Amino acid sequence: MDKERFAKQLAFILEADKEKEIYRQTHITGYKRQENDAEHAWHMAMMIYLLKEYANEEFDLAKTMMMALIHDIVEIDAGDTYAYDAQALATQTEREAKAAERIFGLLPEEQKAEMISLFNEFEACETPESKFAHAMDNFQPLLLNDANNGGDWRAHVVKKSQVKKRQIKTAKGSKDIWEYTKKLIEKNVENGNIINDD
Amino acid sequence: MDKERFAKQLAFILEADKEKEIYRQTHITGYKRQENDAEHAWHMAMMIYLLKEYANEEFDLAKTMMMALIHDIVEIDAGDTYAYDAQALATQTEREAKAAERIFGLLPEEQKAEMISLFNEFEACETPESKFAHAMDNFQPLLLNDANNGGDWRAHVVKKSQVKKRQIKTAKGSKDIWEYTKKLIEKNVENGNIINDD
Repeated sequence: MDKERFAKQLAFILEADKEKEIYRQTHITGYKRQENDAEHAWHMAMMIYLLKEYANEEFDLAKTMMMALIHDIVEIDAGDTYAYDAQALATQTEREAKAAERIFGLLPEEQKAEMISLFNEFEACETPESKFAHAMDNFQPLLLNDANNGGDWRAHVVKKSQVKKRQIKTAKGSKDIWEYTKKLIEKNVENGNIINDD
Repeated sequence: MDKERFAKQLAFILEADKEKEIYRQTHITGYKRQENDAEHAWHMAMMIYLLKEYANEEFDLAKTMMMALIHDIVEIDAGDTYAYDAQALATQTEREAKAAERIFGLLPEEQKAEMISLFNEFEACETPESKFAHAMDNFQPLLLNDANNGGDWRAHVVKKSQVKKRQIKTAKGSKDIWEYTKKLIEKNVENGNIINDD
């Protein structure tokens, strides 16, 4: 074992622990408290495995699960950018690139390169892996929010056009889940959880 | 899409959300609060990917990561059994088997069978996948506890023989990490975090 290499890997693993304190807008079951990034990533990776049959294209499972596990790590420095916060979205890319450099930079050089590549691949959303990962990144909070009677949508007074814009990438990863998503959105428009701005 | 099948998958995914409220004895960085099962599984799956080079044997990455992600789901019904609680350990297997039947039973039949098989494989700790998953299941809280100056060991007045007994399976998955583990234990015995009962 190369001790210096191992020390770098452990430094990253311990730094990643901070994701457990980055709270998202989504609430856990029963609307008890906000969900954190680590919990979201865990849920998403599990969904990638269990719902893989609905992906539009064949994809590498381990790679996609790891992509899910690390896709929000940059938020340790850059913070969680709420999907409907236009001001924060404008500076998100720059803030996150800087964070990726520092945080993945704790790893040995070739693992740093691999993780930054995985993170950038996710962001670009052009490969089968990143497209399905994005579908799950969208679908996981949608499911929770629906189960919580749309509490997060109501709290933020969110419009149908905003939800659809946010969820549209799901179609790139899974047409089946996009069809289901549209129905879920309609249901929540009908019961008043999402504002109808058609 | 088979709607009934999809509904079963979603029922399981929403049930799994309850893992976010099952708190372990281990604390997150800075000893701020206890870690929950979902966070632990997320961390462990990431470690499986990043530390795979230290495994004694070749193993299937996606399978092992999924094993990590679901290995504690039974605790939704059976609760977290603290590693040094002899009374709870005696009934753990029976409680967990019953929980696995109910919780994985929410899934479509063949996914239920796959997940129960994965859970049982983890528990048996005889395959390369389950041996490395166990090594990470041990190493993740050890690392956190060490980073927190042994707070959990001190709170539970834990003895060296207990920690070693708990960690011994790590050697089956990774000789390298077992060597490192022994050194970490010694360091914490020397600084008084773990009681020396040699």
